[in-house]
Amino acid sequence: LVEHVLRFQPHGKKATPRPGASLLELAIEAGVSIESVCGGTGKCGKCRVTVAHGSSFLSAIGEGERSLLGDVSDGSRLACMTRVLSCGDIVIHIPEESRRGHHRLLAAGEERKVKLKPALTKAVLALPEATLQDVRADEDRLMDALSDQKGLKARMANAVYPDLPKGLREQNWTVTATVYRDEEIIRIEPGDTADRLHAVAVDIGTTKVVAYLLDLNTGKVLDSESMPNPQIPYGEDVMSRITYSSREQGGLENLQSVILEGLNSLISSLCEGAGMEEADILEVLVVGNTAMHHLFFGIPAKHLATAPYAPVVRSSMTVNAEDLRVRAYPSAKVSALPNIAGFVGADAVSDLLASGLYRDSGFGMMIDIGTNTEIIAGNKDRLMSCSCASGPAFEGAHIRHGMRASSGAIERVWIDPSTRDVRYRTVDDSAARGICGSGIVDAVAEMFKAGIVDHAGKLRTDGSDARVRKAENGSAEFVLAEASESANGKDITVAQHDVEEIQLAKAAIFTGVSVLMGKFGVSGDEITTLYAAGAFGTYVDAGSAIAIGMYPDIPTPRIKFIGNAAGAGARMALKSVSMRSLAERLSKKVEYVELAAEPNFQKEFAKAMFLPHRDRERFPSAMRKE
Amino acid sequence: LVEHVLRFQPHGKKATPRPGASLLELAIEAGVSIESVCGGTGKCGKCRVTVAHGSSFLSAIGEGERSLLGDVSDGSRLACMTRVLSCGDIVIHIPEESRRGHHRLLAAGEERKVKLKPALTKAVLALPEATLQDVRADEDRLMDALSDQKGLKARMANAVYPDLPKGLREQNWTVTATVYRDEEIIRIEPGDTADRLHAVAVDIGTTKVVAYLLDLNTGKVLDSESMPNPQIPYGEDVMSRITYSSREQGGLENLQSVILEGLNSLISSLCEGAGMEEADILEVLVVGNTAMHHLFFGIPAKHLATAPYAPVVRSSMTVNAEDLRVRAYPSAKVSALPNIAGFVGADAVSDLLASGLYRDSGFGMMIDIGTNTEIIAGNKDRLMSCSCASGPAFEGAHIRHGMRASSGAIERVWIDPSTRDVRYRTVDDSAARGICGSGIVDAVAEMFKAGIVDHAGKLRTDGSDARVRKAENGSAEFVLAEASESANGKDITVAQHDVEEIQLAKAAIFTGVSVLMGKFGVSGDEITTLYAAGAFGTYVDAGSAIAIGMYPDIPTPRIKFIGNAAGAGARMALKSVSMRSLAERLSKKVEYVELAAEPNFQKEFAKAMFLPHRDRERFPSAMRKE
Repeated sequence: LVEHVLRFQPHGKKATPRPGASLLELAIEAGVSIESVCGGTGKCGKCRVTVAHGSSFLSAIGEGERSLLGDVSDGSRLACMTRVLSCGDIVIHIPEESRRGHHRLLAAGEERKVKLKPALTKAVLALPEATLQDVRADEDRLMDALSDQKGLKARMANAVYPDLPKGLREQNWTVTATVYRDEEIIRIEPGDTADRLHAVAVDIGTTKVVAYLLDLNTGKVLDSESMPNPQIPYGEDVMSRITYSSREQGGLENLQSVILEGLNSLISSLCEGAGMEEADILEVLVVGNTAMHHLFFGIPAKHLATAPYAPVVRSSMTVNAEDLRVRAYPSAKVSALPNIAGFVGADAVSDLLASGLYRDSGFGMMIDIGTNTEIIAGNKDRLMSCSCASGPAFEGAHIRHGMRASSGAIERVWIDPSTRDVRYRTVDDSAARGICGSGIVDAVAEMFKAGIVDHAGKLRTDGSDARVRKAENGSAEFVLAEASESANGKDITVAQHDVEEIQLAKAAIFTGVSVLMGKFGVSGDEITTLYAAGAFGTYVDAGSAIAIGMYPDIPTPRIKFIGNAAGAGARMALKSVSMRSLAERLSKKVEYVELAAEPNFQKEFAKAMFLPHRDRERFPSAMRKE
Repeated sequence: LVEHVLRFQPHGKKATPRPGASLLELAIEAGVSIESVCGGTGKCGKCRVTVAHGSSFLSAIGEGERSLLGDVSDGSRLACMTRVLSCGDIVIHIPEESRRGHHRLLAAGEERKVKLKPALTKAVLALPEATLQDVRADEDRLMDALSDQKGLKARMANAVYPDLPKGLREQNWTVTATVYRDEEIIRIEPGDTADRLHAVAVDIGTTKVVAYLLDLNTGKVLDSESMPNPQIPYGEDVMSRITYSSREQGGLENLQSVILEGLNSLISSLCEGAGMEEADILEVLVVGNTAMHHLFFGIPAKHLATAPYAPVVRSSMTVNAEDLRVRAYPSAKVSALPNIAGFVGADAVSDLLASGLYRDSGFGMMIDIGTNTEIIAGNKDRLMSCSCASGPAFEGAHIRHGMRASSGAIERVWIDPSTRDVRYRTVDDSAARGICGSGIVDAVAEMFKAGIVDHAGKLRTDGSDARVRKAENGSAEFVLAEASESANGKDITVAQHDVEEIQLAKAAIFTGVSVLMGKFGVSGDEITTLYAAGAFGTYVDAGSAIAIGMYPDIPTPRIKFIGNAAGAGARMALKSVSMRSLAERLSKKVEYVELAAEPNFQKEFAKAMFLPHRDRERFPSAMRKE
């Protein structure tokens, strides 16, 4: 008797292909989590898989399935609709976006492979002993050995001199020199310490700070730690912090010192966890938006907030840890990747590194959605960037039942277009407490597709839907989760005002997308890859983002989720000096487009307020579904 | 009637040539001070002048005069022995060493002319205003202007960034950038401040610290200030300070912080005097011996004190003022000239710059006498250096009636070889209080020439001289000034022990001289120039220094007094970057000879203990006079 096997890739988990069972059921049995919101009714389209082998043992594709999937030439199927017909070996591939929980893994950011060549190297040197016949200065003795034994000519960091005489003599003239970029000796240790080479990459987000501890000998991430940005009490968003820093006496110094304290506590945690001293950290590389960057280095950010929004610094800054009071080896270097413009910062450059967009031969677009959304478009030949004031709606702010993507937040919504049945999924599958960014985008998209809101974003109050009602303030609202299902026993609703907030936010983003496409003379379907960066970009459903007209209308497989690309790019830059040179070159190469200075900005914005757009022909897939 | 004129050069002062009067008398009448110790009796030989014009109106040269002067082909005469015979125009040149008081002028050090090209330049730039059409970063805007308008590519000092946005905008986008070595912008000021460019040169001597305020736009020294080295309470000499710094807890930090405080107070005085802010000081250049250098920068000096005496740092150090807590503009550079060896420091390199020895085509020798005496010998092709432990005798230490060269110190001594009459001169011509270094060298030289001490340095106690007597401790002493003449009513004497101290000191120096001559295969009369540097080297009488065998036996006109050459070299280096590059090259080029490692060191030293030397033929002029 032959035992047939159904294998789910890339996990490699197996199930027995039981005739009559759906792939979704068999996946659940095998412990493989596949996305699904509609409850396996073939309607939400989230459980897309591809059949790599054994399609003849599976049920044929149906009408509804095909229309949800679009192009099925790659073997695409909906897992819930595909059933085993007969026994045989089957291999099913689950694409990334259909894997449940992949979002959380992605949050750390996807690094591209880089050749390990960090800025730091450790040179172990055996020096000739000082004698009356050889009375060279300690410095010259070391430099000569570095040159003779390693072919390196470097200068000495001033802070190293005091340690030099002891360092040279303590282990019988064997010494390890830590060399930065082959040009500066930043540390001298007695004996051979080549096996210890550690650095920290830091992503300073406006709301969250993440630090990664790297072993630069292996390139491995040993650990990561995160915390809310400790500047939040001084202002939720970038603008209010800039205002605080420039208007309040000592404001800049305060903001700098709290972020430094925050970073220092992350470094301490990482070191404690790894059983290391903070002085073992020999380099720190930081990314963040231009305002976070300036505040971190104590550079006035005032002019970022007023036209023409010129940053003070573009190029890669490098400061000694002790000068900045960063808890690392005193002459460790604390660097930042370069900025592009006042609102396209080092984090966007880092996104660019992680995406690989800069070497695309087609036409790519990287979108990192936040309160400010940075967009970089182009390819290996030319790159343009812009910044869109998309606001905090995607973080749940200004949304009546909005919340961050924490436990109980509605993160997925599906509305059956015919029955208008509502299904949703919450973070951690706990009772609903509110709606997070991806949930509200899903909700608006599904409400639009189901005809609950119209092209202009108005809730249809004609009584056609029982869930649409008048709120206490007199405006319309849509009941997403009923009181009986929610954690606090109250209805969770999407208000007319919430839809408008989402319209404003998505219009801001699409205007940027549209202006850049216009500059390149490229239309939506010419976009070969859309790199969705950042936590929200990872969590938001690509189809919903297109449905509301936030992303251009391209086939969803062309959308690549790169997660916290800012952190990933920072780690890549720590691991590879050539990534840093590239970052410096890119920060100059990327042309900045100031949207406010674009003559057709207002008109574009107004048209983008519609769902999905005033010019419906720019969203053919949305038209198809209406 | 024709009025004839006697003119004294280089002063240009005039007298009427009165027949019968000596040139010395006429000089005094004209207010020109000429050296004289023997009271115009033609015996001390200090009043040498040259007759540039009108020798036919002067008395003929006598026997005694000629034998004191040696070579007279240049028109040399003794001013006291030369009388006006008949009326006519006469021009007399007074060489430097015969000018009374020239020593004090020389103390500031003689600078050689250098082309004014300081490390600092100020670039006044008119920047295009930031607009929505030109949103370059402030940094890029400045760098582009610096490149377009001045052809300079520089990096920005990190400390400048915080001042950048205000600096650019305050004077309508006109800005002055202070650029260090054409490579780093260390300051940004609004408007045009090109007329203000100030720096401070500092000579950190073991006993005295001198600071000079320079206007780098003109190269002029605006003012100077000095103070005793504030480290003296922690040890009179270099060795005791090194011991303190390495044995006492926090000793290095203490010594560093007192010298920094000292320097800061000198800078404050200079700035106050010039009506400037300390933040107007944009560069500080420091010289000192290797120990002073290391202690200043907080570098352990411990290994300087034990064989093989290797310094930690040779090359030119440069530190930001704020890192060192030097009271100047925070990103001002504080640099030191390079060291050569553990006991041949930046001060010797500075001496070398000031002397010009490095470009001699003959064979030169620079001697800077102190507790440690540095000697550099050679010429444009090759240079060698050594350090001699000459001890503090020349500073009056370990000498019974020794004192510093302050008011009342016997600084010149002359003993009539036939009558054994003693004459002396004191600082400020006040009543004698003791003997300073130049006085004790004169005394020993004159006592030797008069036969009061013998070849071995023994005082002749055979009763042949009434001034030689038994001291209370039983050993012999020579009464230099009698109780009736002295300030405290007690005899001022030269003890047998004092002579021995001088023998030890001069032997240490001559051993260095001799070893270096041996290395080059050069004999005494091949020395074309002997550069006498430092205060003592300036004050000490060259003839006496040769008579006791401290200097090699060369014609005294070949001895060039360069005064505080360390300070002069520091000022030259501040004014000229090419002097600094030269210093760096020289510090590597000068070969260091460790005397302790020389096989014939002890023998050489023992022979040099004699007056003038065991091998008398090395001092033919002394033999002539015996």
